Amino acid sequence: MSADAHPPGAASGPLALIAGGGAYPADLARILAARGQPLFVAAVDGAADPGAFDGGEVATYRLGQLGRVLDEFKRRGIADLVFLGGLPRPSFGALMPEASTLRYLPYFAKAFQGGDDHLLSAVVRFFEGQGFRVHGPHEIAPELTAPLGPLGKRRASSAQQELIARGFSLLSALSPHDVGQAAILADHRVVAIEAAEGTDATIRRVGELVASGRLKLGKGDGILVKAPKDSQDLRVDMPAIGPDTLRLAAEAGLSGIAVRAGRVLVGDRGRLGDLADKLGLFVEGIA
Amino acid sequence: MSADAHPPGAASGPLALIAGGGAYPADLARILAARGQPLFVAAVDGAADPGAFDGGEVATYRLGQLGRVLDEFKRRGIADLVFLGGLPRPSFGALMPEASTLRYLPYFAKAFQGGDDHLLSAVVRFFEGQGFRVHGPHEIAPELTAPLGPLGKRRASSAQQELIARGFSLLSALSPHDVGQAAILADHRVVAIEAAEGTDATIRRVGELVASGRLKLGKGDGILVKAPKDSQDLRVDMPAIGPDTLRLAAEAGLSGIAVRAGRVLVGDRGRLGDLADKLGLFVEGIA
Repeated sequence: MSADAHPPGAASGPLALIAGGGAYPADLARILAARGQPLFVAAVDGAADPGAFDGGEVATYRLGQLGRVLDEFKRRGIADLVFLGGLPRPSFGALMPEASTLRYLPYFAKAFQGGDDHLLSAVVRFFEGQGFRVHGPHEIAPELTAPLGPLGKRRASSAQQELIARGFSLLSALSPHDVGQAAILADHRVVAIEAAEGTDATIRRVGELVASGRLKLGKGDGILVKAPKDSQDLRVDMPAIGPDTLRLAAEAGLSGIAVRAGRVLVGDRGRLGDLADKLGLFVEGIA
Repeated sequence: MSADAHPPGAASGPLALIAGGGAYPADLARILAARGQPLFVAAVDGAADPGAFDGGEVATYRLGQLGRVLDEFKRRGIADLVFLGGLPRPSFGALMPEASTLRYLPYFAKAFQGGDDHLLSAVVRFFEGQGFRVHGPHEIAPELTAPLGPLGKRRASSAQQELIARGFSLLSALSPHDVGQAAILADHRVVAIEAAEGTDATIRRVGELVASGRLKLGKGDGILVKAPKDSQDLRVDMPAIGPDTLRLAAEAGLSGIAVRAGRVLVGDRGRLGDLADKLGLFVEGIA
């Protein structure tokens, strides 16, 4: 395998995947295995399913076992890391640090204040400070992100494109305030904005407004837009959509989903495109 | 009564109050009665409670009886109007216009597209086009709006003031997008933004995040900010808080509420200040 076969930013030696919840860490491991990339998976206890990684080397660690993880990475000669998968926002008290980790605690105590962006950036800086290179999943495996254009057969109409542009403009305005990964537009206006509740709850809320008659969705109306915030470190906190996002959107009566191409994870593009067609939704990556 | 006793913008002849739901229309009628201002209340059927207006002249009209309302205003020599109280967003089909109203329908058919701001502005322009002056409740009775400073005994601390400033800055950024009358900040970040669901549902959502353990509120944390959008026509669509807002905020574990002084309705200031003290909240008007 030549060095040219690696996308920019990918590792040339063994790579460690620090894996949280969801299907994407296993998707990434499969892609890397197909490339012949040596991989060690550090599965976060309570978030990742270690059984989902067929064939690779996997070990499970609690967040409080950070010291042990570092030792194992060094023992294996790993210099390159990628984070992928959802993590519950931990409480500092629930870390239960073991002896090997105690000395790193003061570093993280401060990071637990401030928004999610601050905490996650601190994690990246910590590993970088320990001499590791931290890569984004979109750098290691761009094929897991939304392509430019539709994932399935449907495309946004020009009226829908107008609403999508309004949505992305809204998300840009929210970005400096460290909030607003997603919003829903319908009935010629913004009907929901995501903050701490997450994308799924935001979609459900619109479904409830429709069900209660407080919001009427005409044919082709109702669009979810999702993009990273400007300040968001994609190496440790990439926005994602998946089969559940599409199912909830269809249940809420939305007509489609638009995401920032290359900067939002979609997992297996073909699988998600097929589901979009089945549910009658457009799912598009926008430049 | 001298002309000087009228606040700027108030009527000098008989005034019509087009009254929707909630306690504020009756509060306004009481204030005007105490001033000796002749008043005719046109209560919107299904929204206003005509029995809440003690002593004044009140008649109830359906939205589809607009022509009849205009005739009655003209018969009474009324040239000045004020709108107050919540209206359900009507569906065009549910208007059930009677003969006197049919000729005005084409005007409103267009206004039913676009955001709330568009519809309500169209209502103002319609009455202005018929020769009426439309006044804002804050112009007729500024004593119904939030004063500058605290309503009760509690004041925002300097840390809380910082969070409030962040909140108002967020609302300003949202304003050009015709959304975002309210937001809730907690845990050093924006945790909820109001769109079509309304302020009450936004507060409840934060209460649920707290109850489920997904959001932790320390002592003095959790603040609701509320302000009109820049484009909002206060004559027909003033943001409001009231006893229910305070009760929901206290239930959700919030520590206080900050609103734009003079531009958010609070009803009886003393009554709301007493309730704030009882619930342990600060409620402050901010310049």
